[in-house]
Amino acid sequence: MLENILIKTTYNKEGASIMAKEKQFVEAITSMDQDFSQWYTDVVKKAELIDYSSVKGCMVIKPYGYAIWELIQKQLDKRFKDTDHENVYMPMFIPESLLQKEKDHVEGFAPEVAWVTHGGSEKLAERLCIRPTSETLFCEHYANIIQSYRDLPKLYNQWCSVVRWEKTTRPFLRSSEFLWQEGHTAHATADEAQAETIKMLDVYAEFCANVLAIPMVKGRKTEKEKFAGAKATYTIEALMHDGKALQSGTTHNFGDGFAKAFDIQYTDTDNTLKYVHQTSWGMSTRLIGAVIMVHGDDSGLVLPPAIAPIEVMIIPIMQKKEGVLEKAEELRKRLAISHRVKVDTSDKSPGWKFSEYEMKGVPVRVEIGPKDMEKNQCVLVRRDTREKLIVSLDELEVSVENLLSQMQQDLLDKATKHRDAHTTTAVTMEDFASQLKATPGFVKAMWCGETACEEAIKEVTGASSRCMPFEQEELAETCICCNKPAKEMVYWGKAY
Amino acid sequence: MLENILIKTTYNKEGASIMAKEKQFVEAITSMDQDFSQWYTDVVKKAELIDYSSVKGCMVIKPYGYAIWELIQKQLDKRFKDTDHENVYMPMFIPESLLQKEKDHVEGFAPEVAWVTHGGSEKLAERLCIRPTSETLFCEHYANIIQSYRDLPKLYNQWCSVVRWEKTTRPFLRSSEFLWQEGHTAHATADEAQAETIKMLDVYAEFCANVLAIPMVKGRKTEKEKFAGAKATYTIEALMHDGKALQSGTTHNFGDGFAKAFDIQYTDTDNTLKYVHQTSWGMSTRLIGAVIMVHGDDSGLVLPPAIAPIEVMIIPIMQKKEGVLEKAEELRKRLAISHRVKVDTSDKSPGWKFSEYEMKGVPVRVEIGPKDMEKNQCVLVRRDTREKLIVSLDELEVSVENLLSQMQQDLLDKATKHRDAHTTTAVTMEDFASQLKATPGFVKAMWCGETACEEAIKEVTGASSRCMPFEQEELAETCICCNKPAKEMVYWGKAY
Repeated sequence: MLENILIKTTYNKEGASIMAKEKQFVEAITSMDQDFSQWYTDVVKKAELIDYSSVKGCMVIKPYGYAIWELIQKQLDKRFKDTDHENVYMPMFIPESLLQKEKDHVEGFAPEVAWVTHGGSEKLAERLCIRPTSETLFCEHYANIIQSYRDLPKLYNQWCSVVRWEKTTRPFLRSSEFLWQEGHTAHATADEAQAETIKMLDVYAEFCANVLAIPMVKGRKTEKEKFAGAKATYTIEALMHDGKALQSGTTHNFGDGFAKAFDIQYTDTDNTLKYVHQTSWGMSTRLIGAVIMVHGDDSGLVLPPAIAPIEVMIIPIMQKKEGVLEKAEELRKRLAISHRVKVDTSDKSPGWKFSEYEMKGVPVRVEIGPKDMEKNQCVLVRRDTREKLIVSLDELEVSVENLLSQMQQDLLDKATKHRDAHTTTAVTMEDFASQLKATPGFVKAMWCGETACEEAIKEVTGASSRCMPFEQEELAETCICCNKPAKEMVYWGKAY
Repeated sequence: MLENILIKTTYNKEGASIMAKEKQFVEAITSMDQDFSQWYTDVVKKAELIDYSSVKGCMVIKPYGYAIWELIQKQLDKRFKDTDHENVYMPMFIPESLLQKEKDHVEGFAPEVAWVTHGGSEKLAERLCIRPTSETLFCEHYANIIQSYRDLPKLYNQWCSVVRWEKTTRPFLRSSEFLWQEGHTAHATADEAQAETIKMLDVYAEFCANVLAIPMVKGRKTEKEKFAGAKATYTIEALMHDGKALQSGTTHNFGDGFAKAFDIQYTDTDNTLKYVHQTSWGMSTRLIGAVIMVHGDDSGLVLPPAIAPIEVMIIPIMQKKEGVLEKAEELRKRLAISHRVKVDTSDKSPGWKFSEYEMKGVPVRVEIGPKDMEKNQCVLVRRDTREKLIVSLDELEVSVENLLSQMQQDLLDKATKHRDAHTTTAVTMEDFASQLKATPGFVKAMWCGETACEEAIKEVTGASSRCMPFEQEELAETCICCNKPAKEMVYWGKAY
């Protein structure tokens, strides 16, 4: 596999001389097939996305990793604003008594919150937890500001960091502190709240498909898997390269449960007091983990152009020759009008640079050297397929543009094919186990709706219920586990 | 004063009928001259910038307040990126042992940090404080990633919230949690670090002048006022409408103090190990407080167009008449190409809307009604001067554009005039006290450099040293306090 990559990569003369060095660089990461988990850790470090810190379970998000997050934020935030949501900022602290107001919610979160007990040298009269999520704070605020039907709906979102005290952590996928957005809305009716819950799930899925190039399965969580305090939780589930599922975003319909606990009432047009209906929804830096595990390969990260901090990296060949650096800079200027583009003028060899930006997942590299200049051409190389294209400099802009949009589309298609090829169906428990072993991925199977069966399936196969998809199929009439009448087709899978 | 405002505001017939109601709305805020502090609190609430929460000293930043912060962030972040800085994200926690590594730093911050002692139900082996500022975290990271001169400079910034346990708090000006940016850089030489410290101070001052329309005095802080752990602290100081000073941003040169405490060394070109030289610099949501107190008036907030979430509010007059709402929407579309613009189609009366958007500081309002339509015109009203302009609809875009840029410039000019008119000089302590009473503001006076005199001056006059300005004048040869030879001319003032 590694050999293939090296052979498929195209080198100019100067580049060839450093093949040994480059091999060393590439070999520094474990191959996916050998140890997917180690490969992930290697990529996260070698692509310079994160660094570890001395704080348990917390990571430093380095410039390149944070630039990806900024591109995710920007494009997601635009979608929130286009759907009339407004950003706000709530305190990071929740007094213990406030957290306890909604019974299910506190039971779900209390075991994993960080507690502040002292301010300076003084002991606090009441402990404060650092928000693991901010339902309680939004509810307190909504109780303050909602009086009349005229005040509804409230469509708020916030970008912040939250803390959940995790025992075992992995960069981006599970950390004690992580960055996210949390939408919190209040509506006059149950129907409106339900519509919002589904609408934001659709926004999430559309964003993941069109920006992250990751196809999602949309559906509802079972009672066992739903959010603490929610009436219903909806989820988008993605399939990673190794066949494991990743819950990538969730939306929750709270009905009027929180409204009753926090006394959030409004005077309706008929002059009667009514409780509001609420929702919340969140996506986090976990999405970066999804991008790594869906698109990455043995040379490192592969970034969809839409979230690539550098879409095009220009690498001058024989850069000491007259005019090469000037030409590279000229191309940069031309491409910079529509794209995020850089030139690497450092004294590293071209081959070394090729490997470095492959590791970082830069979608397109442009090679330009004296021979290319003579022929008024340059070489374009796509990160995902490593296809090499020789194009006239007169058509540089349109060629790069086409290559980037083609790559964005191809990544989605490839991920969709992989997901579909790793989605099997089972009608018996034996099927289930053998399918999951032969083709690790999603298994579709019928379920009676009982938590006991859900737990038994996990016990036997290791797969948890991922969601009850909106697009139901009737694979059988009975539950795969207990043979009682089936209620739902469920996507099952081993999950991160 | 209030009567003047009402008379100067222009009403159409429909508007006149609600004058009483509007008066009520406007009167709901205290006048500046009567009680500036109460006026500030009223504006912050009535303009819907913040709400209080049940968490001591923490505020909820509401959509309108947060939208101002987003515009500040966006324009400041662009300046950071244009000067080659990169954004990162560090953990929000600092282990106690890490905080203690730099002696002066821990002494300065330990008394005001929040301590996390428990994760879930378990007591932590080591207490963690919530970052009051992140020097220690950046230092730990820099010690990890800096090896060679090739790794320098590191020019990092982060946007986050920080916590300082304050006894008395005021929205935006002083709160237990606040939002800010903190730049942290590491350089090969002392000269480079000093150049960065001054460069970022200049970036801050230019931003405040051109975006916030607030003129700044730039200078160095005295030993007493400098940042805990810094070799030198530089500041930009603004003068509020009430004559009090507001420290609006600071930059710190750490020399190699932190580098020695955290062992951040690099191998230089001559193959010897050297300590890096570091800086940090920060501005916060406090800037919103400055905008309120520099530009606001008795009708509420006045926003410079550059940070106004709504630059232009269109208010239809007699909106039930045929074609009025359609025309208003047409104008909105035309202006939306270059500006943040909205139409208020609610059933509130025009006069009510006028007051509401004056309270919110919307720079320009457009009035359009049936009579205006007949004449192919509309009315433009500037928030700051309340000047009324009747313009042809054919010239709408250019008229609005001119009005907005004129207002942006005029606000800066007015604030500069106010600042200059409230900057006095003193050569005796008697002068000092009487000047400060007669013309509350900055007092320029000579100083010997001794902390004892600095403290005595504060004791006697209530004014603290704001900065030793870059532009020095020799007002006298001796210290205003002790009559020993003077070393510096200092800006003094009562401060927030």
